[in-house]
Amino acid sequence: MLSQRLRNDSLKELIMSAEEASRFIEDGMTVGFSGFTPAGDVKVVPFALVERVKKEGQPFKINLFTGASISSKVDSLLSDAGIVNLRLPYQSDKGMRKHLNSGEVNYIDQHLSHTAEFLRSGALPAVDVAIVEAVAITEEGYIVPGCGVGNTPIFIQQAETVIVELNLAQPLGLEGLHDIYIPNPHGSREPIPLTQPGDRIGTTVIPVEPGKIKAIVVTNELDVNAAMTPPDEETATMANHLINFLRDEVAAGRLGPSLAPLQSGVGSVANAVFYGFLDSEFSDLQVYSEVLQDAVFDLLDAGKIKMASGCSLTISPAKHDEVLENLDKYRDRLVLRPQELSNNPEIARRLGLIAINTAIEVDIYGNVNSTHIMGTQMMNGIGGSGDFARNARLTFFCTMSTAKGGKISSIVPMVSHVDHTEHDVDVIVTEQGFADLRGLSPRERAKRIIENCAHPDYKPMLMEYYEEALQKGGHTPHNLEKALSWHVKFVKEGSMK
Amino acid sequence: MLSQRLRNDSLKELIMSAEEASRFIEDGMTVGFSGFTPAGDVKVVPFALVERVKKEGQPFKINLFTGASISSKVDSLLSDAGIVNLRLPYQSDKGMRKHLNSGEVNYIDQHLSHTAEFLRSGALPAVDVAIVEAVAITEEGYIVPGCGVGNTPIFIQQAETVIVELNLAQPLGLEGLHDIYIPNPHGSREPIPLTQPGDRIGTTVIPVEPGKIKAIVVTNELDVNAAMTPPDEETATMANHLINFLRDEVAAGRLGPSLAPLQSGVGSVANAVFYGFLDSEFSDLQVYSEVLQDAVFDLLDAGKIKMASGCSLTISPAKHDEVLENLDKYRDRLVLRPQELSNNPEIARRLGLIAINTAIEVDIYGNVNSTHIMGTQMMNGIGGSGDFARNARLTFFCTMSTAKGGKISSIVPMVSHVDHTEHDVDVIVTEQGFADLRGLSPRERAKRIIENCAHPDYKPMLMEYYEEALQKGGHTPHNLEKALSWHVKFVKEGSMK
Repeated sequence: MLSQRLRNDSLKELIMSAEEASRFIEDGMTVGFSGFTPAGDVKVVPFALVERVKKEGQPFKINLFTGASISSKVDSLLSDAGIVNLRLPYQSDKGMRKHLNSGEVNYIDQHLSHTAEFLRSGALPAVDVAIVEAVAITEEGYIVPGCGVGNTPIFIQQAETVIVELNLAQPLGLEGLHDIYIPNPHGSREPIPLTQPGDRIGTTVIPVEPGKIKAIVVTNELDVNAAMTPPDEETATMANHLINFLRDEVAAGRLGPSLAPLQSGVGSVANAVFYGFLDSEFSDLQVYSEVLQDAVFDLLDAGKIKMASGCSLTISPAKHDEVLENLDKYRDRLVLRPQELSNNPEIARRLGLIAINTAIEVDIYGNVNSTHIMGTQMMNGIGGSGDFARNARLTFFCTMSTAKGGKISSIVPMVSHVDHTEHDVDVIVTEQGFADLRGLSPRERAKRIIENCAHPDYKPMLMEYYEEALQKGGHTPHNLEKALSWHVKFVKEGSMK
Repeated sequence: MLSQRLRNDSLKELIMSAEEASRFIEDGMTVGFSGFTPAGDVKVVPFALVERVKKEGQPFKINLFTGASISSKVDSLLSDAGIVNLRLPYQSDKGMRKHLNSGEVNYIDQHLSHTAEFLRSGALPAVDVAIVEAVAITEEGYIVPGCGVGNTPIFIQQAETVIVELNLAQPLGLEGLHDIYIPNPHGSREPIPLTQPGDRIGTTVIPVEPGKIKAIVVTNELDVNAAMTPPDEETATMANHLINFLRDEVAAGRLGPSLAPLQSGVGSVANAVFYGFLDSEFSDLQVYSEVLQDAVFDLLDAGKIKMASGCSLTISPAKHDEVLENLDKYRDRLVLRPQELSNNPEIARRLGLIAINTAIEVDIYGNVNSTHIMGTQMMNGIGGSGDFARNARLTFFCTMSTAKGGKISSIVPMVSHVDHTEHDVDVIVTEQGFADLRGLSPRERAKRIIENCAHPDYKPMLMEYYEEALQKGGHTPHNLEKALSWHVKFVKEGSMK
């Protein structure tokens, strides 16, 4: 069994315990973990590291760089242990969130395509140690990644020390699905030769310089993915609005029956939209996205999707075995890439993606807040939404029109934090309807967003704000004294009403 | 003379007066004008159009699409005449500004690389008539553009009617400088085969389908460019800070002595930075930008710049003849491209640009407002800054630390409008100093921006705000009740102090 997984005999002597491997990590180092939301994350060395640090009782801090979110347990463990100085580019853990909102952990909320570039150009501290999951190590000593590619290639390229978690629980059938392409440094960079979502332009393994692998830890644990909330009435309604919009686009001749390659953010809304395609007339769909969730596989099974490219397979426990044990079925229709390729602006613009992402709140002019609750508290991070929204052919942001049982309106006079400016937002979708903002000036946008997307409870209040703002005038009318008053009210009184 | 300029005999019969040509423009049409800040703009047909409309006395509105800003006279004339329904993607005229801020003209403030894409995908009304300046029309009936390429290729590709202003005043020496490349529609698009700023990948002329040219109007007027303010003490100080920063990057091994291809926004700060390079040790510089201003030519003359690619030549009156009469000198080192190429995210990311743009205001977390005075009044527009800032290797935003004789602080608690989010901003430069934000969390950014960039008069007020915000906590601490209070105070009292 192990010889199938570790095909280079000379590396066998590097097999060691997680505790031993953790000794390569020193105070002050920058450590890159594999893992993308949270597929393919490392599962044992982080625990051993925290044990070791606690035992030693010495001051100890690392910078923790990942692909995107990793296991919630690990983010909580490391941040609770107080050993994280800087965390980037994305997280979605309650524990880590607490520490970064208190300022105890420095967090850089970063476009997911940017991290590799910033490391390459020296804009971030260089990665000292990469800890990466593999389902196999080849004869050449190269890495076959697990369910997520993320930033693993750049971490390995930059690190002096690579620790491999060789995971026997993940199927060897993953081998061959990956397509690893690493752009040259600036100055000698070529066009990325990808013109269709399914193009394979790299290698199936991640190259590692000889001698870099210093430790191999054998593991036997599946990825821990969240359960996927099935579409409920509200997410299904939003999905319907979005699909009806696409239907209108086809009718108007702006899109064909196969639409355009689809990108969708993580979560139940995106999943519901994809389930909506199951019963639609669209066919031969293609996906060029970051996380591939459950619905993608239902659509592949139904023959609706002909090609899916992503950065990770994030399959819920309910569907996990069905997909992972039948990878051969998908082999010709599935590609997993590094996140600087899955989220690359060059590719997003070239392919003309349809980008579907979620918002926390949207303002009447179409600016989107994807990250901060009431302007100050970080939720997760911008993730890949900015990579796609700016460059897609058609950019959707979806949100329920209210939150907290109606006490929060997701449509507000002015967003309390901006992640996507009105320049990058084409269509807003709520359970109330959609607002097509293309070709509209700010004043036209305001009327359409309030009319089509706001909850009836908040519509009169929004119109009142807008009418008052109009009296002040300007291209983007605002009453700055009241622009953030809804948020202030919520913080004080627990309701925007 | 004319036969040199109009080389297709059969087109000669299309020569007509501006008044006659203006009759092709009908109420409700979308009209694309050549011109980019404002090089290569059209000079006579717009005047004839307004005359005609006034004479006819009928209701008349057009959508007016351009490359970027055009002659201030034309924007004022058309908007004062009340014939503009929708204007995009950029303007910088006092008259037009008044009308769009009053809501009388709908204005879409758009990334300059987006317009062509939006037209191609049908997200904007299709261009009915293109009115474009040419220095010559070839035997094939193709257009040799003037000093600006802008959106002329897509306007011509899409319009059913093309009106050419054949401008005898512009030198024929411009011929051969242009490089026209038009991407295929989505679905059949190839990588843009440009890997160095000087690569020529297209044709020197803009193709026109036979029969589309319906009118040729002979003109004889130079572009009217603004005088360039020479560097003063303050802009020179900012330029020095920026150049010292680059010096540090070279010393740290993050950049070589030729830096990386440079992009700079329009205006006196950018010009001052470029003049700063004259006395610097940097050599073999390259420019990949939109507008090429005076300083680029001084640097070419001094042998400091080896290659400059842009979308327009915007040369001040003082330097105009020197450059335009000596184009042969620059022929091998100068390329003019359509704006969807000069501003292309694919290219910006591949080349790893150094992007230098100006801000109206910046907040303590590094968010940038490039467009709106006090959150509501549009100044000019975002222009190309977003195309570059998001994708550059190194993104600078420059602003004087105060405006209106010190009554406005350009560093504020929260910007009143966001054009560039903190995710896209690397370095802030004011005359006070620079703040390198790379690798910093929001709390670290706040301290550095206040300390290094704010004016001493406002530093204590900013620190006071920040300290109070810290009490409220969060990843991005804010006191939402006071976040916009500086702007409110200025509007009410005429000063932020």
